[in-house]
Amino acid sequence: MNPEPIRLFVTGGTFDKEYNELTGALAFKDTHLPEMLRLGRCRVDVSVRTLMMIDSLDMTDADRATIVEECRHAGESRILITHGTDTMVDTAAALASALPPASGKTIVLTGAMIPYAFGSSDGLFNLGSALSFVQVLPPGVYIAMNGRCFEWDRVRKNRETGVFEAI
Amino acid sequence: MNPEPIRLFVTGGTFDKEYNELTGALAFKDTHLPEMLRLGRCRVDVSVRTLMMIDSLDMTDADRATIVEECRHAGESRILITHGTDTMVDTAAALASALPPASGKTIVLTGAMIPYAFGSSDGLFNLGSALSFVQVLPPGVYIAMNGRCFEWDRVRKNRETGVFEAI
Amino acid sequence: MNPEPIRLFVTGGTFDKEYNELTGALAFKDTHLPEMLRLGRCRVDVSVRTLMMIDSLDMTDADRATIVEECRHAGESRILITHGTDTMVDTAAALASALPPASGKTIVLTGAMIPYAFGSSDGLFNLGSALSFVQVLPPGVYIAMNGRCFEWDRVRKNRETGVFEAI
Amino acid sequence: MNPEPIRLFVTGGTFDKEYNELTGALAFKDTHLPEMLRLGRCRVDVSVRTLMMIDSLDMTDADRATIVEECRHAGESRILITHGTDTMVDTAAALASALPPASGKTIVLTGAMIPYAFGSSDGLFNLGSALSFVQVLPPGVYIAMNGRCFEWDRVRKNRETGVFEAI
Repeated sequence: MNPEPIRLFVTGGTFDKEYNELTGALAFKDTHLPEMLRLGRCRVDVSVRTLMMIDSLDMTDADRATIVEECRHAGESRILITHGTDTMVDTAAALASALPPASGKTIVLTGAMIPYAFGSSDGLFNLGSALSFVQVLPPGVYIAMNGRCFEWDRVRKNRETGVFEAI
Repeated sequence: MNPEPIRLFVTGGTFDKEYNELTGALAFKDTHLPEMLRLGRCRVDVSVRTLMMIDSLDMTDADRATIVEECRHAGESRILITHGTDTMVDTAAALASALPPASGKTIVLTGAMIPYAFGSSDGLFNLGSALSFVQVLPPGVYIAMNGRCFEWDRVRKNRETGVFEAI
Repeated sequence: MNPEPIRLFVTGGTFDKEYNELTGALAFKDTHLPEMLRLGRCRVDVSVRTLMMIDSLDMTDADRATIVEECRHAGESRILITHGTDTMVDTAAALASALPPASGKTIVLTGAMIPYAFGSSDGLFNLGSALSFVQVLPPGVYIAMNGRCFEWDRVRKNRETGVFEAI
Repeated sequence: MNPEPIRLFVTGGTFDKEYNELTGALAFKDTHLPEMLRLGRCRVDVSVRTLMMIDSLDMTDADRATIVEECRHAGESRILITHGTDTMVDTAAALASALPPASGKTIVLTGAMIPYAFGSSDGLFNLGSALSFVQVLPPGVYIAMNGRCFEWDRVRKNRETGVFEAI
């Protein structure tokens, strides 16, 4: 269990939303992922790269193609992606189509229901969970939310409860 | 990946330390684990039971025997234990001696460096991590800290840095 | 310095904004003021009443008339109002016009730049400040922000910096 | 109400206690007061100086003499002191004896029941409160706690409830 290096791709989502005190609106600035890894005293070798900083409802096919290409070309075989929850399943499907298990890549997507910068966020729990699943699962594309891990085609987000559930 | 039910045994440790505002000292009251699982919006079936509420430096052989017996008799085959970090390795050894892999039990111990009740705790990250490892690892006794998971006999706590490292 | 009872009127504003995790938008639910007074271990006799729960940019003349009437009819002579910062000065002017110092009322408006429910809010500081000014200032209408207290006609909010400054 | 400059003397106390994650004990490092003033977006001219960093139960007569001398020689006539709550009244008495109202100094002592660095501290509320009282009260020595302000010889800390009450 000597952990392999992990690539963490940041795409935005609730994880990284902040309150802009001058406009009174939610907005993205820099990612909080490095700070979160420090807070968790994480000692796994994680390389963070921000691909985009967007709400997943605004994610285009071109954005998804970018994510797929970055995963394809990453030197690491274990990849974590932070992502808005609303279209996480769509991006997972795009990844699974392009990077089947034979690619040797274990890809885990995760997100948050409450921004990390706000009180009472689930972000740190989800990050700890996803970072652990990605270390031990076989190649494939997964979604880690609510302490669980789902294969990409066995999950949906229940919009009424905010919970990811098996299908 | 339909998660099996998990038993969570609480033994105290930094996770659950609180500040007593009348005495100005650190103390244990009730465990924060159920609140932490709620905050993480955890949807895994976790049954929490508090075995003791102590600093792990005060843990006796009798206390360890209690923990071993509770794990032995638990109906669940996947068990999570929150524990002070100072003697976590000792308890892991006691468990490994009594419950070898042939017992079919996957037991993961975890802890925190900063109390959950205080700002900037690593507890939620560690809980998310340990809860994930315990779902997927084969029978055995493990320590999950700093985003990593160690077999019980391959780890020590570095007292000078507070980090768990492989041996 | 035996404190007189204080009336606290809640009108909404950033103080009480929350993150709705199902919609991903900011919204109002219940006021946090009683919780904030408990956190501050406040032992002043404060009666909280919610008049409205709105963004101050949405406040109408009718809303302001309601606030004025409630202040006029309050039995207490010391009144604290939580209010969005964007039009706090306008409401202060309406109050000053209707309730001159001869009315015997000391009215202090305060607000927050960051919602209390989010990390790193200035709300608790402002509440402690406004609650103190209202106990000791002579009749009149004031705005307490940034640790300062301004007479209602000697202050403006600088929209570019978010700071209240003397004019 | 153009605020005069304020001198803030830090002496330690619960305000500034931290959790040392290597020893598991409470300890003092640097003061959090400048950070707290930033969080409150304080725009009053406050000069912070740390005189000592101790639990007020450990405060000696020599320490109190130091505090008195610093207040006597401060150029500012408005002085705020952060102090442990257990002997705050004793230090207030020493100050009142040396610096009567004729000295022209308004001195307010304040503290916290929960360390600022921990969750759910009353520190920010108390700081906002004390900073406001010190701006408007006439010369004298006061204690600001629980949203109230007491003359130095009209207050005691109730050790059983942790509340400051009038005598």
